[in-house]
Amino acid sequence: MLQKKILAAPSIKRLPRYLHIIKQAQMDGAEYISATTIANELHLVSIQVRKDLGITGIIGKPRKGYPILPLIESIERFLNWDTEKKAIIVGAGNLATALTGYPEFFNHGLKFVAAFDTDTKKIGKNIHGVPVLSIKQLSEKVSELNATIAVLTVPSKVAQECANIITKSGIKAIWNFTNIKIKLPADVVSQFEDLTSGYAMLSVKMDSIHND
Amino acid sequence: MLQKKILAAPSIKRLPRYLHIIKQAQMDGAEYISATTIANELHLVSIQVRKDLGITGIIGKPRKGYPILPLIESIERFLNWDTEKKAIIVGAGNLATALTGYPEFFNHGLKFVAAFDTDTKKIGKNIHGVPVLSIKQLSEKVSELNATIAVLTVPSKVAQECANIITKSGIKAIWNFTNIKIKLPADVVSQFEDLTSGYAMLSVKMDSIHND
Repeated sequence: MLQKKILAAPSIKRLPRYLHIIKQAQMDGAEYISATTIANELHLVSIQVRKDLGITGIIGKPRKGYPILPLIESIERFLNWDTEKKAIIVGAGNLATALTGYPEFFNHGLKFVAAFDTDTKKIGKNIHGVPVLSIKQLSEKVSELNATIAVLTVPSKVAQECANIITKSGIKAIWNFTNIKIKLPADVVSQFEDLTSGYAMLSVKMDSIHND
Repeated sequence: MLQKKILAAPSIKRLPRYLHIIKQAQMDGAEYISATTIANELHLVSIQVRKDLGITGIIGKPRKGYPILPLIESIERFLNWDTEKKAIIVGAGNLATALTGYPEFFNHGLKFVAAFDTDTKKIGKNIHGVPVLSIKQLSEKVSELNATIAVLTVPSKVAQECANIITKSGIKAIWNFTNIKIKLPADVVSQFEDLTSGYAMLSVKMDSIHND
């Protein structure tokens, strides 16, 4: 069951950008938004936008487009962003500081409740209001705080070891920012975040300027 | 020309992970690696791996797989990662600190040569050996340092303004970590990095555990 492929991955990954544009239109006082408007904003074809939004269950109205409020609700419900999720962050370095200070996560229900590290110089401090605790306290704190997500931002060489500590604590979802593919029990889901893949895209695009 | 769609985007985005696995096999002393080995490591089907590697121009040998050295060269040449690229980073905050300290970029030819900010408390300091300069010096320094990439990590509300300063300096490639779609001249390429899209994927995967 957990090995089932999320078939609509590229569509799901585009939904946050759609949501951002739709919310801006809402702030501008619009009541409807068309797939064409969203598509133009992102240099996509409108049929792609309609298809992507369709996975959330919403259907647009001919000529008028999508009613904004139900559209926002439909996307947020589909992404499970309408309920608060408590997350811990393992590795209290610069990336942890960047992520805990990123307002978009909080706006989408992701609340960082604690960070963990082994560095005694960091333990006892706060990053953007999130307390940094000793990794030894992880299991105890996860139960106490009801955290369901762990964001893994430790150095690669300790990634697997930390993943083991996380899964032992009962957490079933890991967002992995290390460059190691961690081994996990079958009932734990993970999302691998590869910062070099965006750089790969940019490099190929740059190359296309020079060679065309 | 610049509006041409990079059709193989998902394949290109997977190449860095393949490269990582192939280089590990090389360190372990292997001379050949099969698409199946890479596929198993990443929970992909081997035909997908073969197709993705094919875009770099390499062809594997039946039974033996791909010769490791030519395979690495083929991927690095395709991604343009075999030549050094100098990058500036605009916005010297936590994300900039995380990115400049990420060893994978340096290993793939991306060299941060300067960071820019408006905060006088940051100007004159270093982040991971990269000098932080005033944004007023940007144009002058880009010419002096021959930088070709700008990584944009400023707050969203000043993203467009900073993008304008960057494009005026002659830089033709922007890696955008803000949540704003910036408007750019037709001869400038950009890559949008959306940290919430990984969170969207993780949320949907979590939901699939609870509902199955």
